Amino acid sequence: MVNGIERPLDVLNNAKGKEVLVQLKNNRQMVGTLLAFDIHINIVLDNAKEINEGENKRSIGLTFLRGDTIIFISPASVVKQED
Amino acid sequence: MVNGIERPLDVLNNAKGKEVLVQLKNNRQMVGTLLAFDIHINIVLDNAKEINEGENKRSIGLTFLRGDTIIFISPASVVKQED
Amino acid sequence: MVNGIERPLDVLNNAKGKEVLVQLKNNRQMVGTLLAFDIHINIVLDNAKEINEGENKRSIGLTFLRGDTIIFISPASVVKQED
Amino acid sequence: MVNGIERPLDVLNNAKGKEVLVQLKNNRQMVGTLLAFDIHINIVLDNAKEINEGENKRSIGLTFLRGDTIIFISPASVVKQED
Amino acid sequence: MVNGIERPLDVLNNAKGKEVLVQLKNNRQMVGTLLAFDIHINIVLDNAKEINEGENKRSIGLTFLRGDTIIFISPASVVKQED
Amino acid sequence: MVNGIERPLDVLNNAKGKEVLVQLKNNRQMVGTLLAFDIHINIVLDNAKEINEGENKRSIGLTFLRGDTIIFISPASVVKQED
Amino acid sequence: MVNGIERPLDVLNNAKGKEVLVQLKNNRQMVGTLLAFDIHINIVLDNAKEINEGENKRSIGLTFLRGDTIIFISPASVVKQED
Repeated sequence: MVNGIERPLDVLNNAKGKEVLVQLKNNRQMVGTLLAFDIHINIVLDNAKEINEGENKRSIGLTFLRGDTIIFISPASVVKQED
Repeated sequence: MVNGIERPLDVLNNAKGKEVLVQLKNNRQMVGTLLAFDIHINIVLDNAKEINEGENKRSIGLTFLRGDTIIFISPASVVKQED
Repeated sequence: MVNGIERPLDVLNNAKGKEVLVQLKNNRQMVGTLLAFDIHINIVLDNAKEINEGENKRSIGLTFLRGDTIIFISPASVVKQED
Repeated sequence: MVNGIERPLDVLNNAKGKEVLVQLKNNRQMVGTLLAFDIHINIVLDNAKEINEGENKRSIGLTFLRGDTIIFISPASVVKQED
Repeated sequence: MVNGIERPLDVLNNAKGKEVLVQLKNNRQMVGTLLAFDIHINIVLDNAKEINEGENKRSIGLTFLRGDTIIFISPASVVKQED
Repeated sequence: MVNGIERPLDVLNNAKGKEVLVQLKNNRQMVGTLLAFDIHINIVLDNAKEINEGENKRSIGLTFLRGDTIIFISPASVVKQED
Repeated sequence: MVNGIERPLDVLNNAKGKEVLVQLKNNRQMVGTLLAFDIHINIVLDNAKEINEGENKRSIGLTFLRGDTIIFISPASVVKQED
């Protein structure tokens, strides 16, 4: 169990400065370092890369992602380190 | 009959800390432990796994899911234990 | 004519505790006992079953359904008993 | 010309208790007696029937329809009688 | 140039009682007499007809159209008379 | 660089009375004279023409376009004159 | 790490007057100079060009883009200069 998650945005707050996987609608995925988010789930990733079924597809760098295209944001590797 | 369900969010409140099945739009499904939710039905799952027609497809770990991609959330196994 | 229906939500209020058919977008259907709803038409069904062209497809149990995936909710069998 | 229609909802108010044709997104249609509506254009139909290119497809009975799936509502036969 | 159009809704106000062409999403079109509209661009047409690539497809009569299915409303013939 | 553009709507304000290209969802395009707009980006075009891959497809005349079907509005020729 | 990004819109503010890549829904992409944006992520690009899998497709010039069609905005080349 992960401690200290009271509200959904706590997960994003804990993930700031760490790498996240972002699943977008239309089967796009991005990985990058989460720099910022707001209540609309607009987010900023640094060193973002689009990935396509496990392969790098395009290097995007710093990017602003609109919240309404996001399905999930997963700071997975971070969490495994905390467990 | 399940007691104590006055409002839809009561079901999610009762399911905190327990495993849920989440059906997403576009035929995606996830199972995981429900850690948090908000009024937009944004949720956090721990130990999340994408499943595809009964088979594990991808292990996601901790994940933030945006509410607008969710069709239903079912704490089914929990309920069966309470009946 | 059904008496006592002044506002659309009156139908859902009358159907509490009774079986309803829920038509979802993307050709999904569910039947189950309506336990709760809110003004967003988020609903809770107990003993929910997904059905597919008349056949049971999956037993879901207790489930929270987000309102924005719902096309219609029909407490049809209940109404026939009242007529 | 139809008299007394100042605002769009006046048409729905005049059609209460009368048969309407409801065109839904995704090519679904319903006919039934309009019992109630609200500002979201959520409506309640009694004796509702899904129709498919002129043929009855399914008898639904009393049903709550969410406004956001509706394209148009036409109290057409009622109007012809008033002209 | 058309005079007196300060805000988009002025066009709809000027078109009241006149014939309009309404382009809906999903390639549907309607023609009819505009009786009423509101700020959501819900509209009422009288003597409405669905048209399909220039041919009449279905006579609808009086109809309430939800604004969110509308792409454009064109009081075209009216304007040509004013020019 | 274009001077005097502080907010996005400034571009639309500058384009009033001039010809714009409007890209709609679903690959529709229109050209016409921008007469009015509001904060929902509902717009009015005069002498509007639907164009299809560079060819005129349909002459619409005066038209009200709902903002939610618009991808971009480009007063391109106007800008080139100002540069 | 990029300094001074507290909120998502800070990225857009920093990118004003610089070239950005804008990924739109439906696989459209644009590049251009970001002149303005608002909280709906409506943006204005100058010297905008639609690009299609790396090739220029259409030169648009000054353009107003509605926020709800945007997936991401990436001031990528700018960021690389800052690192």
